[in-house]
Amino acid sequence: MEGWKLLLFLFYLNLVSFTLIVADPPKCPVNIGTECGDGHDSGEWKGEFFPGIPNIKYEDWMRFSVAFWHTFRGTGGDPFGAPTKMWPWEDGTNSLAMAKRRMRANFEFLEKLGVDRWCFHDRDIAPDGNTLQESNSNLDEVVALAKELQGKKIRPLWGTAQLFMHPRYMHGGATSPDLGVYAYAAAQVKKAMEVTHYLGGENYVFWGGREGYQTLLNTDMERELDHMARFFEASIAYKKKIGFNGTLLIEPKPQEPTKHQYDWDAATAANFLRKYGFIDEFKLNIECNHATLSGHSCHHELETARINGLLGNIDANTGDPQIGWDTDQFLMDIGEATLVMLSVVRNGGLAPGGFNFDAKLRRESTYIDDLFIAHVAGMDTLARGLRNVAKLIEDGSLAKLVQKRYQSFDTDLGAEVEAGKANFELLERKAMEWGEPEVLSAKQELAEMIFQSAM
Amino acid sequence: MEGWKLLLFLFYLNLVSFTLIVADPPKCPVNIGTECGDGHDSGEWKGEFFPGIPNIKYEDWMRFSVAFWHTFRGTGGDPFGAPTKMWPWEDGTNSLAMAKRRMRANFEFLEKLGVDRWCFHDRDIAPDGNTLQESNSNLDEVVALAKELQGKKIRPLWGTAQLFMHPRYMHGGATSPDLGVYAYAAAQVKKAMEVTHYLGGENYVFWGGREGYQTLLNTDMERELDHMARFFEASIAYKKKIGFNGTLLIEPKPQEPTKHQYDWDAATAANFLRKYGFIDEFKLNIECNHATLSGHSCHHELETARINGLLGNIDANTGDPQIGWDTDQFLMDIGEATLVMLSVVRNGGLAPGGFNFDAKLRRESTYIDDLFIAHVAGMDTLARGLRNVAKLIEDGSLAKLVQKRYQSFDTDLGAEVEAGKANFELLERKAMEWGEPEVLSAKQELAEMIFQSAM
Amino acid sequence: MEGWKLLLFLFYLNLVSFTLIVADPPKCPVNIGTECGDGHDSGEWKGEFFPGIPNIKYEDWMRFSVAFWHTFRGTGGDPFGAPTKMWPWEDGTNSLAMAKRRMRANFEFLEKLGVDRWCFHDRDIAPDGNTLQESNSNLDEVVALAKELQGKKIRPLWGTAQLFMHPRYMHGGATSPDLGVYAYAAAQVKKAMEVTHYLGGENYVFWGGREGYQTLLNTDMERELDHMARFFEASIAYKKKIGFNGTLLIEPKPQEPTKHQYDWDAATAANFLRKYGFIDEFKLNIECNHATLSGHSCHHELETARINGLLGNIDANTGDPQIGWDTDQFLMDIGEATLVMLSVVRNGGLAPGGFNFDAKLRRESTYIDDLFIAHVAGMDTLARGLRNVAKLIEDGSLAKLVQKRYQSFDTDLGAEVEAGKANFELLERKAMEWGEPEVLSAKQELAEMIFQSAM
Amino acid sequence: MEGWKLLLFLFYLNLVSFTLIVADPPKCPVNIGTECGDGHDSGEWKGEFFPGIPNIKYEDWMRFSVAFWHTFRGTGGDPFGAPTKMWPWEDGTNSLAMAKRRMRANFEFLEKLGVDRWCFHDRDIAPDGNTLQESNSNLDEVVALAKELQGKKIRPLWGTAQLFMHPRYMHGGATSPDLGVYAYAAAQVKKAMEVTHYLGGENYVFWGGREGYQTLLNTDMERELDHMARFFEASIAYKKKIGFNGTLLIEPKPQEPTKHQYDWDAATAANFLRKYGFIDEFKLNIECNHATLSGHSCHHELETARINGLLGNIDANTGDPQIGWDTDQFLMDIGEATLVMLSVVRNGGLAPGGFNFDAKLRRESTYIDDLFIAHVAGMDTLARGLRNVAKLIEDGSLAKLVQKRYQSFDTDLGAEVEAGKANFELLERKAMEWGEPEVLSAKQELAEMIFQSAM
Repeated sequence: MEGWKLLLFLFYLNLVSFTLIVADPPKCPVNIGTECGDGHDSGEWKGEFFPGIPNIKYEDWMRFSVAFWHTFRGTGGDPFGAPTKMWPWEDGTNSLAMAKRRMRANFEFLEKLGVDRWCFHDRDIAPDGNTLQESNSNLDEVVALAKELQGKKIRPLWGTAQLFMHPRYMHGGATSPDLGVYAYAAAQVKKAMEVTHYLGGENYVFWGGREGYQTLLNTDMERELDHMARFFEASIAYKKKIGFNGTLLIEPKPQEPTKHQYDWDAATAANFLRKYGFIDEFKLNIECNHATLSGHSCHHELETARINGLLGNIDANTGDPQIGWDTDQFLMDIGEATLVMLSVVRNGGLAPGGFNFDAKLRRESTYIDDLFIAHVAGMDTLARGLRNVAKLIEDGSLAKLVQKRYQSFDTDLGAEVEAGKANFELLERKAMEWGEPEVLSAKQELAEMIFQSAM
Repeated sequence: MEGWKLLLFLFYLNLVSFTLIVADPPKCPVNIGTECGDGHDSGEWKGEFFPGIPNIKYEDWMRFSVAFWHTFRGTGGDPFGAPTKMWPWEDGTNSLAMAKRRMRANFEFLEKLGVDRWCFHDRDIAPDGNTLQESNSNLDEVVALAKELQGKKIRPLWGTAQLFMHPRYMHGGATSPDLGVYAYAAAQVKKAMEVTHYLGGENYVFWGGREGYQTLLNTDMERELDHMARFFEASIAYKKKIGFNGTLLIEPKPQEPTKHQYDWDAATAANFLRKYGFIDEFKLNIECNHATLSGHSCHHELETARINGLLGNIDANTGDPQIGWDTDQFLMDIGEATLVMLSVVRNGGLAPGGFNFDAKLRRESTYIDDLFIAHVAGMDTLARGLRNVAKLIEDGSLAKLVQKRYQSFDTDLGAEVEAGKANFELLERKAMEWGEPEVLSAKQELAEMIFQSAM
Repeated sequence: MEGWKLLLFLFYLNLVSFTLIVADPPKCPVNIGTECGDGHDSGEWKGEFFPGIPNIKYEDWMRFSVAFWHTFRGTGGDPFGAPTKMWPWEDGTNSLAMAKRRMRANFEFLEKLGVDRWCFHDRDIAPDGNTLQESNSNLDEVVALAKELQGKKIRPLWGTAQLFMHPRYMHGGATSPDLGVYAYAAAQVKKAMEVTHYLGGENYVFWGGREGYQTLLNTDMERELDHMARFFEASIAYKKKIGFNGTLLIEPKPQEPTKHQYDWDAATAANFLRKYGFIDEFKLNIECNHATLSGHSCHHELETARINGLLGNIDANTGDPQIGWDTDQFLMDIGEATLVMLSVVRNGGLAPGGFNFDAKLRRESTYIDDLFIAHVAGMDTLARGLRNVAKLIEDGSLAKLVQKRYQSFDTDLGAEVEAGKANFELLERKAMEWGEPEVLSAKQELAEMIFQSAM
Repeated sequence: MEGWKLLLFLFYLNLVSFTLIVADPPKCPVNIGTECGDGHDSGEWKGEFFPGIPNIKYEDWMRFSVAFWHTFRGTGGDPFGAPTKMWPWEDGTNSLAMAKRRMRANFEFLEKLGVDRWCFHDRDIAPDGNTLQESNSNLDEVVALAKELQGKKIRPLWGTAQLFMHPRYMHGGATSPDLGVYAYAAAQVKKAMEVTHYLGGENYVFWGGREGYQTLLNTDMERELDHMARFFEASIAYKKKIGFNGTLLIEPKPQEPTKHQYDWDAATAANFLRKYGFIDEFKLNIECNHATLSGHSCHHELETARINGLLGNIDANTGDPQIGWDTDQFLMDIGEATLVMLSVVRNGGLAPGGFNFDAKLRRESTYIDDLFIAHVAGMDTLARGLRNVAKLIEDGSLAKLVQKRYQSFDTDLGAEVEAGKANFELLERKAMEWGEPEVLSAKQELAEMIFQSAM
């Protein structure tokens, strides 16, 4: 554990907070005028989108990634409100030229933030066309630019296909009751997997956008799950065919947009994978906000994934404990971050996965510096979590407390039990021989106190 | 589906409500005096415990069962209050004689209710002794009486071991960190399985009382789950050894008493069974209140169990949608009962499982007639649910609506997809050939309207 | 209670379901072509929007109302998806001409449904202009048309101002930290109140769109609540000034879009009204889905409003018990509807309020007939609820059960207690004189059985 | 803010954790034998109950209090399990002698912990008698001992009456449908208020044990609330009569043991107080775990109480964010403690209220040192919270961020608005004059980052 190079953002953070608290609103409205960059070439402007923001330095072993959709496609719209983000590089269109300018903003952002990975959906980065062929061609054009901008250092942590926004997917993609939609979804995943591979992506994610149901009254759940299995089977075959060695990741979520998402939580996804024989072909992408929506702590979901050999990636965000929907907030609770890092350390890290900031600015955070504040604070929080884990490990008392609780199994009979060699007759004999067991304190308050004292 | 003999309690219910609304409190307090039964032989009194209650008639194919613990050991105590039930047959002790008198009350209750099945924990029916040997001997004595009282018609729907009440189990039984407790639990399950077998029980249940954790900080979840698997493995072996052919049932519950119960929900239990290779050795006992506590509808959990080939038994009760703990109320919502029966009918019934009334009188329901009202109303509600399912099936429009949604898969290509023969290349070709799919309405409101019109 | 004219939709419903189950998707896409109506005059087409739908008959004393926003502005968009509703009268714009055509569709819908009331937000019915003046002028133009189309029979149940969609309201309206926004909101409410008055509206609603906070860290809650009080004070003054005699209604909601809405539930709103001295100037508009989101049953919120003398209107909808956000579904649960109607009957009806169908088609329900199915089923459900209440009242046993529980207060000493004349010394004397009270059963299961037997 | 004397437990905590992690189970079982203290005089033993625990030093301005019920009457029993705490001073009885010995343990604990306040229910400290008179006499005897043991330094933070444990209170006390129970409750509160006064208690608490309902079907909520108001009215009169100057406190809780507790949350309690005219006679005792059960953050409830002029006392504990019942855990989250202390500082402290540790050891924490660990860690956490608040105040950037958001109201027109002098006509004029408001970022992420950087 020696040689840990912990990230120390604290000095930097103070600097940021000092400058940002007096920040003004963005000077450039939606329509890029002459005073914003060159202003003439809306399509291929290569100026600076984040003037006044210096490059941010830190160690990269956390494998942080920026989520293209939240950061560059998040509009601030919600079910009760119109968009609020008026980023200066946006021209109000969803054109191919706009997609390219947005991609340049992404790479400037990555560079200034010092982050080497990014995540995307196909439709985030390039506009839908009138046909699938046209959509694919749009995608190819933007991906070519991304490839160029990536250079040698930057690559996708993962890519995925957006199978939930378009009305055709309103009943799901792989679990749509309509064969035409199933085929369309397959074609889209095929292409998204190809471009992820082309860009050097390290993983490919299946988040079950609308794979689920709104009511069981109109749904044949069994048939839909069978279809989903066939879809995954075909994706495994295709991955191998094109030589893509990245990890396939399923991202559990309990609800939203559907009442019931088929990949409810880590255990549900694991059951699905085992039932259909895919347990060795997939890992899980655990999102903290999804974890809490499913009634679990994030730490529980991470541990469940880890124990099942499935912890592949983390969508680093958090929810609001009083809110029943996915708020995708930046994780800023240090205790929570410490628990997350505990699992990561036990897992021996996440590579080839990493931490994707699947988090969005609040609708009311509308300045460009808010994008930086949020990402920097998110990274800092995880870094402080890691530092706390280091302290806990060095201190050793928490591990000792746990080890002591189980010491009766670190015996000959314990080993026999754990090897499956102790039948009920033997155990009954022992129980009668030993008499009433002495019951030891679980010392939960002590464990909590040790944990908090590392904060 | 022809020849459905539906239960018609309605006339009876009116009768009951007429008489019960004017009912007086029980005349006989805890200490059985001379005016209550013979009053002299506290141990072996064989009088009538429910005077004035006639026998209740209905068809038995629902396989209803009375839960001994709620009905005969429920005291009305809660975390903020002392016992409130002062049943006249109780003498305030937990003696062996009291256990026998209670067993007689159980059989009078079953007979008057016309129910042929009952469920029990070992420690419900016989008192703990000072040693395991003495506890076993107490159990044998009460079981012998039960065997006699059962006669030819009555038998346990299932039996189980109570591994959660005694302080020794405060950290769990099969997942206790203490090997001594593990062995003790094994001995207790061994014996409980033997007596269930002896009494002709049709199933044996594992409800994971305290198999779970209060905090991950002091817990080695992986090791505990491994222990649980070894425990189950030993139980399978023992079941075979003694020739017990009943079904082994796991009863999922998400929380309570622990923060996290290892058998969280149906999918979690299924994953566990698959991971350790027991998927063919167990079924599930789904409890509606546990389902809703885990964030699912009861119907969802039943369908998940059914689809995984695991629907074995139902603990018929309900929770309060605004309450976050297990209230174990009698199910009296007819819509909910209809959904439950939909799954049962799809499953081709539950046998050798059935419906166990794992429901308790409210703490404030303290009259003997309340015990009857609750059970009769519970049975009536499920009977009305079954009648509604019959109506829905006869009407056919709900089934037609569902069938129509999936009709695109009832084609040659659909069959190929479902057989796993359609790869991504083929599907992409089809998607391009077909163009934009027409998207059909899911008709959820219509489905709900059809459903409600059967009520 | 005699002479109840209950609504009997059942026959009609069967008819509807027979025809609708085989319905085809709408023939006319977004762009109105020649085969859809006249097709030439996109702005002022006066053809039939719902061909093939006959007029629907029923008694009007329930005072049903159609919510313009869900029915005519609901697009099917959600945070994860694009619009799905392609109503044939929409041309894809938000023009004034489109607003007028939409208004005609509204009145055809009302007429065919046989409903005489409608509810609206200012910005639902007319587009925002570039200035407040222009917005007002747009509104005037559409309102003039609505006035004409209303004729003598139809009028608004209530109107309101939309203070949540536009980015200027992202921090709230009356509770925005920005005085400019506060003034803008005041101007908008002033105008909305004027047009509601002009159209003969019977109530004016304040739903606190974004009056609340996202985090207390950046919020001065006390100051914001004071501002809200000043805003309401000004609205009361203005209402009197223009001679508007309708009821002012506050609509509680606990969360969404903000983390905490200031009008959390009925009791919170009542406390606010009392604190600032407005308790006699407002009533409440209770929405069932908001009730359940706040942790209460809908029945509880209705009773709380009623007991505080504040039950003014009901937004008739329902949520999903497993979902933590506002789903605004059509209420189709008959038990729930019966509880709602129990409160309405106890309140002596709702007039001048009524039942507004603040419910939206599921995103996946995309056919025009779905609009009718949902509203008809919603009305039918409440009608069946009312019929059940009549049965319960005629039967009388539930009322008798309740009355009997409190009979000890129907005595001389009980009257003294209720008149505030029994001090602790007197009560202590009585307690000592009487000794241990006999404790009676609450008979909850019996009450539930009686309730269900009326279904 | 200068001269803050912050509590520094950290060194001490390390010491404690070092010694406690290797602690053994308690040596003395329930039956006090000769090797435990003198062993001969079970009733009046005056030895040391916590040998080996030194006195703990800290500043007292936090006004900490130990809750007698959790610490000395908590048995570890739960709905699924028997008691687990085998404190060596307990003899297994509920005798008067036992009550006295327990009281001595309480004062030794207070002294060793260095805490000067304690809280109690009447029935915690003295056993129920066969009659009210006998119960009162038992209480007098124990109270006399407590008075003696208190000396000059120690006194109750508050006292209260236990109106929920005995079956007579199963339908409530002040809201029981039975007049006899109402009178009994009045007599008990009268006495409890007397002894609280006698002991120098600084507050008297009403926690609505079972004041609420299990189902509205059998409940007349309006009548019950009226009764509760009459009960409170009588308590105010009696308080004045006996010259008790302590604060009367209502403790909100949303649920448990009833489905709906009448004092649901701070706003609900405030509405009740205002409706019946008691708003100046009561304050609130906010419990964090109750806050989160009601769907609010603890900080929200504290602020709501403060803004309504009602923040009187804090029951310092916490819940588990994934658990739907009252877990009453010791608060060990430093972020949460910082938010709590923010409200306390804004309130100018809590005196004559304070922090009562209404928190219980986990059922599985069964050693005596666990009692100390939990209380010390609880105090330390709040102390660290206070230190963080000091940091935030000294830094000033959070306050500045908030102040800046509202600066538009710090103008002449803002002052007019806040004085209620700006009518709708004026505001409309201003809105038209000003045009579209510039909308500022809420900077939530920055606020969170500043907050976390103080941790």
